[in-house]
This record gives sequence, structure tokens and C-alpha cells, in this order.
Amino acid sequence: MNNLYLGIDLGGTKMLAALIDEQGRIVAKIQEPTFADRGADDVIRRLIVISDALIADESVRAGAGSITIRGIGVAVAGVLEPDPGIISLATNLGWHNVQLGPILEKWFHCPVLILNDANAAAFGEWMAGERPDIQDMIYITVSTGIGAGIISGGRLIQGTTHSAAEFGHITIDRNGPLCACGNRGCVEMYTAGHSIARRAWVAIQAGEPEAAAIAALNGVEPERVTAEHVAAAAKAGNDFAIRLLADAGEALGCGIVTFAHLLNPALIVIGGSVSQSGALLLDPMLAAIRRYGISKVVGSITFASSALGGAAGVIGAALWARQQLTLKQTL
Amino acid sequence: MNNLYLGIDLGGTKMLAALIDEQGRIVAKIQEPTFADRGADDVIRRLIVISDALIADESVRAGAGSITIRGIGVAVAGVLEPDPGIISLATNLGWHNVQLGPILEKWFHCPVLILNDANAAAFGEWMAGERPDIQDMIYITVSTGIGAGIISGGRLIQGTTHSAAEFGHITIDRNGPLCACGNRGCVEMYTAGHSIARRAWVAIQAGEPEAAAIAALNGVEPERVTAEHVAAAAKAGNDFAIRLLADAGEALGCGIVTFAHLLNPALIVIGGSVSQSGALLLDPMLAAIRRYGISKVVGSITFASSALGGAAGVIGAALWARQQLTLKQTL
Repeated sequence: MNNLYLGIDLGGTKMLAALIDEQGRIVAKIQEPTFADRGADDVIRRLIVISDALIADESVRAGAGSITIRGIGVAVAGVLEPDPGIISLATNLGWHNVQLGPILEKWFHCPVLILNDANAAAFGEWMAGERPDIQDMIYITVSTGIGAGIISGGRLIQGTTHSAAEFGHITIDRNGPLCACGNRGCVEMYTAGHSIARRAWVAIQAGEPEAAAIAALNGVEPERVTAEHVAAAAKAGNDFAIRLLADAGEALGCGIVTFAHLLNPALIVIGGSVSQSGALLLDPMLAAIRRYGISKVVGSITFASSALGGAAGVIGAALWARQQLTLKQTL
Repeated sequence: MNNLYLGIDLGGTKMLAALIDEQGRIVAKIQEPTFADRGADDVIRRLIVISDALIADESVRAGAGSITIRGIGVAVAGVLEPDPGIISLATNLGWHNVQLGPILEKWFHCPVLILNDANAAAFGEWMAGERPDIQDMIYITVSTGIGAGIISGGRLIQGTTHSAAEFGHITIDRNGPLCACGNRGCVEMYTAGHSIARRAWVAIQAGEPEAAAIAALNGVEPERVTAEHVAAAAKAGNDFAIRLLADAGEALGCGIVTFAHLLNPALIVIGGSVSQSGALLLDPMLAAIRRYGISKVVGSITFASSALGGAAGVIGAALWARQQLTLKQTL
């Protein structure tokens, strides 16, 4: 009998379902567009269809009846009530008080655990990322937005309303620009993909020729320049793009100094598409950390890139379900 | 048989020893000046003398042989190696690699646990501060400097080198003034007692008449104006002092928003002499938190003043020793 967990990473643009074994390895997976605009009922119906297909395929492959789904872990961005698995608010899905946990439990006849998506990715990177003996770790994902998760003293830190590790929304400049969250000068205002794209667009509109060259270089309309285009232009030697990435990296570094001064981690894992920009972003980040961090705190930090990539959330959610169900059995 | 713990709070200017019962109540205490300039050997010798006196007195009072010291907890600021109780660096004491734990263990024949002083105070406020059911708490002390401690998921967060919760040294303005720690625009640069005094002194030197009035009002030389003098002048209606405390409060609030966004606490306890300034500091602090914080995170926070005051560290250190020794027994 093969014990498996179903991991689900439910994002605003795509949803990923995967069967995960006890060791956190992916046995099988399916990814589909979310089509969030079709509404919660439709999204959940299709989520069940792809999950059922995964389970059926794997049962056939392994011989009928030879696999058991012990539990389901769901990673989702938003305000959650993990017990009993309600998604109180998920802006990227347009969801409000959706009973995802109870619906999946009823269908699959097994326990469902819901977890913040960045926390899930942190947990996955920690448990399955081959980082033995690490008890204090921070995971940061820099993509369109910024997410993070904290492992401290060998446990996932969730906070009192499961909203911990809002790293994108800590200020590094209280006189800085206003963020959509209400705060000023948030790390996300400088470092997230949407901010890098916005700052390029502002410079293009202001008539900065090197900024306009980013669009030309990538063969796109100026208003369609993304962080990926900025990274490509920077790698090709575009001065404006290099400066923009350097400032994004320095801002990220300043935020990491705060994060490290508060949590004193042994390891910081950085993932997400923007972090793929490489040295042009990461060198200024490391320079800022070395320059501004207290050496006894930042000097002992190891930096690593994500070991699981885009699968961190789905693996983390499944392993979270495994851990929580094992703890429940033990008690 | 009365089981007691010896708590020691070893500061740069004074040292406090107290006998603490299982419930975290002070049975007896002695406070003395540290006289750190006399060197580590002398300080430790006097620490042992007052602790011995405390224990002897209590033995006589309770009847000879009727008390047992189960363990010793020491709260101290600095870089620590809790196992085996070495103080690697304590700037305020001028100590470098002092074997405090082993020395006390040898003398008192019981286990000694060493803990960062602000972490000890946080632990004390949590365990003995009558805050049942709180699992996620932040403790902040605003005094000459700023210290903090984190309880998350029902545990003290210490970090990988016992340096977590360096709240005084998180930036709120990466373009702000350079701090002695190497970072820019640290919370401590605006809110700590030494910073409030420094900013008053800078304004006095610049010829600001309302700043000079602070010295006159308190009957001190201008160069001797302290944060307490600023608070007294503010309460008497001095405009400059009011603005200075308001900015200190707002800076503290900006820092707390960061702290809360990362740790998502249910409760924030604020202590320390500067926090005694009251509404003139705390109202701007709360206004900044409401204005800049994400409502789902800061809206659920209860704010409270310190329940244990200056005894939080000594009580927390003793209760930390009790908890760690109990855990060791259980394992």
C-alpha cells in the first residue's frame, strides 16, 4: 500500500495538483489555468476533476487499490481560517468565504489542510529542499509580488491569524511612495516584478531614452514592458535596466536586513521569477546586507536559491498535511 | 520543601538578583550597582555575594533546609553561547568570553541558563504577566536603548545565534541617519531615550528657543537634557518636546507595523522608561500603526503596558530556567 498526499497550489492564474509521497517527491502532477473569473464553484469543480484524474491514473499505474490518499494540503494566497478550511478572502481569486476545505473533504473522504501559499512554499523548501539540521530559515519569493515564509526553532511561524511573513509589506522608507496595502515605501514597491515594470514604464513616459530602449530591445510596445524584459535588457548592457535592477536588489537587501535582525535565520532561500535576474539583482542585494546588517546576525547566514522552484508550494502543502495529520495521530 | 529559582538580571549599571517561586512570584530580591568598570571577576564575586545573602536570608525565614534552588536563570545583553553559558561579548559590561554559567554552576551546584535580557523580559511578561491563552506576543522595551522579544506559536523565538528580535535596529528609512550598528534609519535612531536626548541637544545647539526651554524648565544644563526632561517639558506644553515625542512615537509605530507584518502577534506589550511618556508618545504610535498597518494584521492586536515593569527580566530568566529544566526532565 502506497501512502500519498494530494497537494494543491491554487493561484490566481494557474492551479497545480500533485500526488506527493511521504518523502516529498512528486509522483504525478497536473497544471491548468485557474480561470478565476468563472467563479468559485467552477474552479473547485475543475480542481476536483484534475485531482480525480491524477488519483485514477496513479491507481491504474500502481495496480488498482494500491494507493491511499492520506490527506490533502492546499496552498492559497489570502485570509484563511484553516479550521475548518475556509478561504475568508482571496483577492486574486475574487473569493469571499469559500468553504474549500469542507467541500474537498466531503469529495475525497480525507482530511484537508489549508495554508498560506508562501508559507507552504517555505515549508516545502525546508522539508524537501535537502537542508538537514536547519532550524531557522527564511524563504522569500520575488515574482510579480513578494511572498515569504518563516521557519523558526524548527517550526513554521504562522502568527495569530495565519498572516505572518508579510515581507513584501514592510517599509524601508517611511517617506517613500504609498503602497496599495496602505503602508509607505514597502519592499514590494521597489523589488516586485510589477514594481520593476511600473518604474520602467514611468521612465519611458518621462522620455528616458535608455528606458525606451528596453522595449525596442525586447520587441514589445513600451506599455507592455515587464520585469523579464528589464532583466533581459540589463543582461544586454542597458544602463537604465542595470540601475533599476540594482536599486531593486538594494531595496530587497534592506528588507532582508530587517527580516534577519528580527528572526536571526541560519539560511535564507530566495526563489521566484524576478530572482532569476541573477547577479544584477542579487549582488546589490548581498552588498546591502553586508553593508547594513549587524555582522553577528547577517555574517552567519547562508544564502541559497530555491531547490524546488515552482513546485515548492504544492510539495509544502502536501507535507504540511502529512505533518499535521501525524501530529494529530501522536496526540 | 519550597522549590525556588534564582533569577539574575545583569545590566551595565545595575544588577538584580531575585528568588522566584514556581508561579513566577518574587519571594525576595536585592539590587546593586554593577560597577562594570571593576572588571568581570569583581562583578561576578559581588553577584555571588548578594545571591548567597538572598538564599541564606530566605532559608532562615522559611526554616533551615526548607528551600531548594532548582536552577538559575541569567538575563544579560550581548552575544551569548547559552551552552555552556558563555558571554561571548557584552559591550555594556566590557565583557569578552566570560564563563559566567560554569562559574555560577560550580558555586551554587545547580544548572544555570543564560538568556538575552530582552528575550528574558518577553518570556517573563508572557509567563507571569497574566496573559492566558496568548500564543503570539511581541514585547518591546523603549528605554535608553530599545530591546524586544518574540513569543510565536507558544514559544520564545531566539534565532540561530540567539540574536533574534533586534527591533531597535530595523530600518524605517534607508536614507536616514547612520546608526552605530551600521544600518541607516534604525527605529532606535528616533525612539530610544538616547536619541530623544540627542535630538533635543542638536536643536538646542541650533538655537531653537523651545528646545532650550526644556533645559530651563527642568533646571538642568542644556547638555544634560534627557528623554525624561523632554517628556516632562512635553507634558508642560512645550511645543518642541511635544513634536519630538510625536515623531519618536510615529517612528516606533512604523517599526511596529514591520514587526507585526512579519510576526502577526495577538498582543504587543510595551515597557521601558520612555514608554512612560504616555499618550504624547503612544497616541502618535497607535495612529501610525492604524494608518500604515494592514488592517487584517494590526486590527487584531491588543496593546498593553508591561505588567512586571523592571522585574520582567529577572522573573523571565528564572522561569526560563524552570521551563528548560522541566523540558530536560521530560525528555
